[in-house]
Amino acid sequence: MAPSPKCQGKACPAPGPVPNGLIRLYSMRFCPFAQRARLVLTAKGVKHEIININLKDKPDWFLEKNPSGTVPVLETSNGQVIYESPITCEYLEEAYPEKKLLPSDPFERAQQKMLLDHYSKVIPYFYKISMGKKRGEDVSAAEVEFTDKVSQLNECLAKKKTKYFGGNSITMIDYMIWPWFERAEMMGVKHCLANTPELRKWIECMFEDPVVKATMFSTEDHKVFFNSYMDGNPNYDHGL
Amino acid sequence: MAPSPKCQGKACPAPGPVPNGLIRLYSMRFCPFAQRARLVLTAKGVKHEIININLKDKPDWFLEKNPSGTVPVLETSNGQVIYESPITCEYLEEAYPEKKLLPSDPFERAQQKMLLDHYSKVIPYFYKISMGKKRGEDVSAAEVEFTDKVSQLNECLAKKKTKYFGGNSITMIDYMIWPWFERAEMMGVKHCLANTPELRKWIECMFEDPVVKATMFSTEDHKVFFNSYMDGNPNYDHGL
Repeated sequence: MAPSPKCQGKACPAPGPVPNGLIRLYSMRFCPFAQRARLVLTAKGVKHEIININLKDKPDWFLEKNPSGTVPVLETSNGQVIYESPITCEYLEEAYPEKKLLPSDPFERAQQKMLLDHYSKVIPYFYKISMGKKRGEDVSAAEVEFTDKVSQLNECLAKKKTKYFGGNSITMIDYMIWPWFERAEMMGVKHCLANTPELRKWIECMFEDPVVKATMFSTEDHKVFFNSYMDGNPNYDHGL
Repeated sequence: MAPSPKCQGKACPAPGPVPNGLIRLYSMRFCPFAQRARLVLTAKGVKHEIININLKDKPDWFLEKNPSGTVPVLETSNGQVIYESPITCEYLEEAYPEKKLLPSDPFERAQQKMLLDHYSKVIPYFYKISMGKKRGEDVSAAEVEFTDKVSQLNECLAKKKTKYFGGNSITMIDYMIWPWFERAEMMGVKHCLANTPELRKWIECMFEDPVVKATMFSTEDHKVFFNSYMDGNPNYDHGL
């Protein structure tokens, strides 16, 4: 029986072992980090089940699997547990090598990792701006810094002259970067992308990708979740 | 002609292209992050040359290669540039696959990455304690936290019942963790290891490793460098 998509809190019983032939993802439907793993699972066509976690009321059995309490977490039918979004995605790439998302050239792989490392310093700005705005704070300084950072992303694409960050087809790095741009409108950062034509073209292309389509939520749904989160009562099950 | 081992500052001319059949490492002799790359280059027997950088007076040509200005940086004879220590080491593993330092099993590889991620949060404590002490500050709170973190490392070894973090032979993760423990005595953190018998045994074994021996400095040399650094005049060329 497939697990309930509703989020599991402290009172929920521990799930049984992962059935043979499946991998399990512990997720939260609106979490962009967990979405990275959902994108990779979907892109690679990996048979999986998802258990959503109530991140405000985490079950002890979940904290035993990942003491830091974050999602995504993967669990195999052997009881192996993997967490941290880039690590889960690289694990999936290696454990399910049929459809490759990473280039085979060592330098191109290193380039993806360096870009991901750079991008990890961009992510906090999505929150500084969206949360700051919601709280009525002045976010203009954060907007200036964010604008500079996204223009560096734009330059990556402009220099490469390719549609995607790893070339002319979607690769791992696109899925790693994507989840926050799916939320760009909801987060109120779209005006910072005014001078990033290549990046905006990338966003358009990504919205057309079937894997993105299969894992995304609408701006409206993201907004409902974000507002509930900012009000202190995250509606993890919104839309179910 | 081999490059001078003396550190290159702003006034030094840019080095020429990397000779064919070699890889170049931009390093600083006492930098533990750069040492990770030196350990991997040595362990894998990769033919390389080293250009040491004056990190207090960085040449523009160096900042063009890595805008963040950190070492290690690798450069290939094709002019490809790779930085961030874990990325440089994984690049070396993939580009020079003859002698493997990473396990082939995807889960074991993920375990090494998760441990490295955990360890990246331990590293700042080496500095909090050693620099705080040197400045005459009270570092007891940092010592308590550090003691807790190293006991988690100890538990990794105790649970696995192996000599090294990846099994009974040295693998990549040992070299990633090592450089700060080489400096443990110099940094005045050894007393925090009192209740970590497995970790102390690991340190002993690591000191006997020929690769470590080939890349290490003595506690006395580390101390001279650290003191010069803390005095605001890092002696990058100490011992040359």
